[in-house]
Amino acid sequence: MADQRPIGIFDSGVGGLTVASAVSRLLPEESIIYFGDTRHAPYGDKSDNTILEYAKRITRFLVDKECKVIVIACNSASAVAAEVLPQIYPQIPIINVVDPTVAYLVGQKAQKVGLIATRATVRSGVYPRRLLSLIESVEIAQKATPLLAPLVEEGFANTQVSRGALEHYLNDEKLQGLSHLILGCTHYPLLQKEIEAFFKGQTEVLNSADLVAQGLKEVLEEKGLQSDLGLGGSRAFYLSEKTEAFAEVAQLFFGEQLEINEQALLA
Amino acid sequence: MADQRPIGIFDSGVGGLTVASAVSRLLPEESIIYFGDTRHAPYGDKSDNTILEYAKRITRFLVDKECKVIVIACNSASAVAAEVLPQIYPQIPIINVVDPTVAYLVGQKAQKVGLIATRATVRSGVYPRRLLSLIESVEIAQKATPLLAPLVEEGFANTQVSRGALEHYLNDEKLQGLSHLILGCTHYPLLQKEIEAFFKGQTEVLNSADLVAQGLKEVLEEKGLQSDLGLGGSRAFYLSEKTEAFAEVAQLFFGEQLEINEQALLA
Repeated sequence: MADQRPIGIFDSGVGGLTVASAVSRLLPEESIIYFGDTRHAPYGDKSDNTILEYAKRITRFLVDKECKVIVIACNSASAVAAEVLPQIYPQIPIINVVDPTVAYLVGQKAQKVGLIATRATVRSGVYPRRLLSLIESVEIAQKATPLLAPLVEEGFANTQVSRGALEHYLNDEKLQGLSHLILGCTHYPLLQKEIEAFFKGQTEVLNSADLVAQGLKEVLEEKGLQSDLGLGGSRAFYLSEKTEAFAEVAQLFFGEQLEINEQALLA
Repeated sequence: MADQRPIGIFDSGVGGLTVASAVSRLLPEESIIYFGDTRHAPYGDKSDNTILEYAKRITRFLVDKECKVIVIACNSASAVAAEVLPQIYPQIPIINVVDPTVAYLVGQKAQKVGLIATRATVRSGVYPRRLLSLIESVEIAQKATPLLAPLVEEGFANTQVSRGALEHYLNDEKLQGLSHLILGCTHYPLLQKEIEAFFKGQTEVLNSADLVAQGLKEVLEEKGLQSDLGLGGSRAFYLSEKTEAFAEVAQLFFGEQLEINEQALLA
């Protein structure tokens, strides 16, 4: 049995490409359709209603493209849409970027967890809520780190700029003595090594892109949805607005040059 | 004669508050209505058509509020809307953030001018086009510096982060030996001292907020539109989406705490 329908992955912009890249590496046989909502990026400071409206339009687009599973590769969208979208599309598995990380922490019986993310993800409280419902006595410290995403997008990872910003954000008493730190934004895997160095190996830094790819693999196997023709999957990339910036940074995030299609989505 | 109608000022977000602040200091008798299009910020990477559509909606809102003059306090919006909006509202003076700086450079007979700005402003070519039409032999070097606006918004001006980013961007051969450098983004006045220090006083760094306020003063005088009741003007601030971030940084940009109204604009 081989289900050759594609996997739909979306984000507000380039960030979700770290997830698409992890999926591509772990599941090279699967085809991927990526949608980046560049016209509305970043979602980080937008309201829940606004983000939910965008997430619905994009999911409709991916469903129309016959995706067999949808990955919400954006923490802001996961926080507000993870429960609503599966109600609209009960027949399609919809994976978000939060649950696989939470499941991993539950498996680890994590006790002192930190989270760095955009303002919207912190404000949503999605990580504390899910963790507290599954682990009895977990302590969770959240910190908004809004410059990190644009910094990574502009190619300042591993420079004096990223060092300065990380020192400013991470030198916070509430982030000391953590067992685990969640990188709660799909841009942050590009800062993983620097963040690990900051914590001198005493805090496990969780790359949610890898955890999402792993979670997706399990869902495909469980539901018998794998593509295993041995031919390698195809990749298609759509943006709601084609931008120079995306083309420039896509390679940084995905690891190879992309051919990009433009597709505006109307309500 | 006192015309007490307000001055309308708009931007995609907080940046235009540097202009509002300069206007407020130079013309304390004038009332100001500020509109920040936070729902659609930043404009920097959006298409011309998208930006023009937003600028039209906001101008309509400010005209409905009986503004006697409109200031486009956003370089991206000035680049695409400065010629179109006056055609739609021929009865209202519409000032943009580009022309006063260009006029100053013409007065100075500038010969070697640099510009740092967002990608959209650089791509628009608005500064080279206007300068070349008015100064015969001017040389102009443009450089997109996209991290500077978010960096300022997140409070990283005058830190290791701003130093690192400025060194990265300004250490560019084409920016050497300039007579003038245009700060082509309304966020950049908060970096003016650092940028002046980088150029060791050998390049005149132009703060467009101050130049726009001066240009506005001249227009009001010329058209007899001044308010001079000696009572001090009022200030009202509208956002298309109320965000925590705006409230936090508004003080940084405007110099005082603001009371903020929310006003979504539909097409």
